[in-house]
Amino acid sequence: MQAMGELRLIKRFRAAAPRHPWVAVGPGQDCAILNWPGDRDLAFKIDQVVEGTHFVLQGPEAATPRQVGWKAMAKACSDIAAVGFWPVAATVAVNLRRGSSEKLALGVYAGLQACCVRYSFALAGGDISVSTKVGLSVVVSLLGEGPKGGAWLRKGAQCGDALLVTGRLGGSRRNGKHLRFKPRLEEARIIRQRLGAGVHACIDVTDGLSRDLHHVCDESGCGAVVFEDSIPYFIPRKNATCTSAALVEHAKCSKRTCVESALGDGEDFELLLAVEPNAAEDLIRGWRHRVPLTRIGSIQPAHQGCVVVAGDGTRRAMHNVGYEHRP
Amino acid sequence: MQAMGELRLIKRFRAAAPRHPWVAVGPGQDCAILNWPGDRDLAFKIDQVVEGTHFVLQGPEAATPRQVGWKAMAKACSDIAAVGFWPVAATVAVNLRRGSSEKLALGVYAGLQACCVRYSFALAGGDISVSTKVGLSVVVSLLGEGPKGGAWLRKGAQCGDALLVTGRLGGSRRNGKHLRFKPRLEEARIIRQRLGAGVHACIDVTDGLSRDLHHVCDESGCGAVVFEDSIPYFIPRKNATCTSAALVEHAKCSKRTCVESALGDGEDFELLLAVEPNAAEDLIRGWRHRVPLTRIGSIQPAHQGCVVVAGDGTRRAMHNVGYEHRP
Repeated sequence: MQAMGELRLIKRFRAAAPRHPWVAVGPGQDCAILNWPGDRDLAFKIDQVVEGTHFVLQGPEAATPRQVGWKAMAKACSDIAAVGFWPVAATVAVNLRRGSSEKLALGVYAGLQACCVRYSFALAGGDISVSTKVGLSVVVSLLGEGPKGGAWLRKGAQCGDALLVTGRLGGSRRNGKHLRFKPRLEEARIIRQRLGAGVHACIDVTDGLSRDLHHVCDESGCGAVVFEDSIPYFIPRKNATCTSAALVEHAKCSKRTCVESALGDGEDFELLLAVEPNAAEDLIRGWRHRVPLTRIGSIQPAHQGCVVVAGDGTRRAMHNVGYEHRP
Repeated sequence: MQAMGELRLIKRFRAAAPRHPWVAVGPGQDCAILNWPGDRDLAFKIDQVVEGTHFVLQGPEAATPRQVGWKAMAKACSDIAAVGFWPVAATVAVNLRRGSSEKLALGVYAGLQACCVRYSFALAGGDISVSTKVGLSVVVSLLGEGPKGGAWLRKGAQCGDALLVTGRLGGSRRNGKHLRFKPRLEEARIIRQRLGAGVHACIDVTDGLSRDLHHVCDESGCGAVVFEDSIPYFIPRKNATCTSAALVEHAKCSKRTCVESALGDGEDFELLLAVEPNAAEDLIRGWRHRVPLTRIGSIQPAHQGCVVVAGDGTRRAMHNVGYEHRP
């Protein structure tokens, strides 16, 4: 199927999805949110990494089995971070190609486990299947918890809100960051502690800044302006493990390439937040953490659309381009 | 990898699985059980169906796409039924081979959706991936709810308990039942309503009566006796849609074959319960439902092992044989 076919299918599925009174937020957000009886809401997410789509096991950009496990778990964590919740328990379905080595399975498990330990949540169950027909895939289902009615959604951004982004954007797959990124759970926790209800909307940047900002604007019924010179770009450390020849290209890339990279590459797994402007100023002023938090623009009225402003003040439309695997 | 390798891996993974204080029951049961703050416990399950392992799309035993979707969802429901809970919300990860038709995707979705609608729970989210490397796989993650501390586990069976089974056993894959079975959610609900704490242990029969009864006995530290003449066998309806040539064989199979089939075939998705004996008698006497509930034996002390008693009173050991895909 083509990407457009997928997109149409997903829309059709969402519209027809059976409901339950406890499900406060269903398909189409980073997580489903359940209003579980009691005083904590529940975030529920499923995510997968599939050989050939999200990683390869051969060639110069090959992932180690441990990285495959880490990526699978961290990707789901990133969605829990995007609603401002914290993970409690994961279950995992691994499908191995028949004839895979035990070392591969142990490596994948080590990566999954390392992420659970790092963020103090349980690996509560799983299933291993071995098949001749399929390659390696790892599906993670993750439960998170957070305050009643307190989940950050894609909708809710308001005109005048500051647009903040954690970390740095662009070049994630080219530089192998997509295999070893840290989900922004701790950053989300700090932001929630400091701002309370000051966060109006949030998304994790998986499809590129452009596409994910469009998601927020579409759901919130608003536009946005982003200042090119404010976007923090991801520059790989010289000693970072990365065998891709593209790394060399990246190091000497132009600002123009960096902008396009941030807008379109995807798999950054950073948080993009729309925050009440005064609260945003306080938050950034007091920010003392290793991972940067940067204001890159503002929310504006819907009729002004999504625009990028260059260093010389030139404005251009921000096209809704980005990574296609999750249209 | 060989089945023994998988078994060793799974044991190793379980022993090392990271924990969380809310997770009351972790890996190794039909579901993880979470002691979520509030008055309802949470069952959390992941399960997968993979082309070539759990179904085929070509040949005389081919599943329709709708059956693949139904099986994936109903299989997870069966595990929720086994702990005596009810499903609330599912998320689904579907992986399609590149070039699959839209009809295939819609068919799988129709099957998933039909199961949600049938048992009144939500399809709360999902992910579709398209890959050149892999065949069709459907992973379902399911949340269920039930009374605080009330989950039925594999452990807990007591000497003298009656062994009850819902429905009929054996020949499920041969007759296509594994593609259209009904998870025993309604039966579990009735049993909970009628017995309260009278159910001491439960499991869903997926690996064959023999293997699953051994699971219960191992976890409960007991043995069991099963009367051959009491086992209800699955006899396919004459007009059941089944293209397998094996159906013909089944219809004329001997009692001996039926016994072996019930003990070893697997994928029955019936419930096997260890129930306080007086309560079991009352329950069966008052049972007025279409799906039969049959007493097939009793729990006995561990040193007496698991035995099968033939019609003529001959006793033999019940070997721990069964379907190997989930050792």
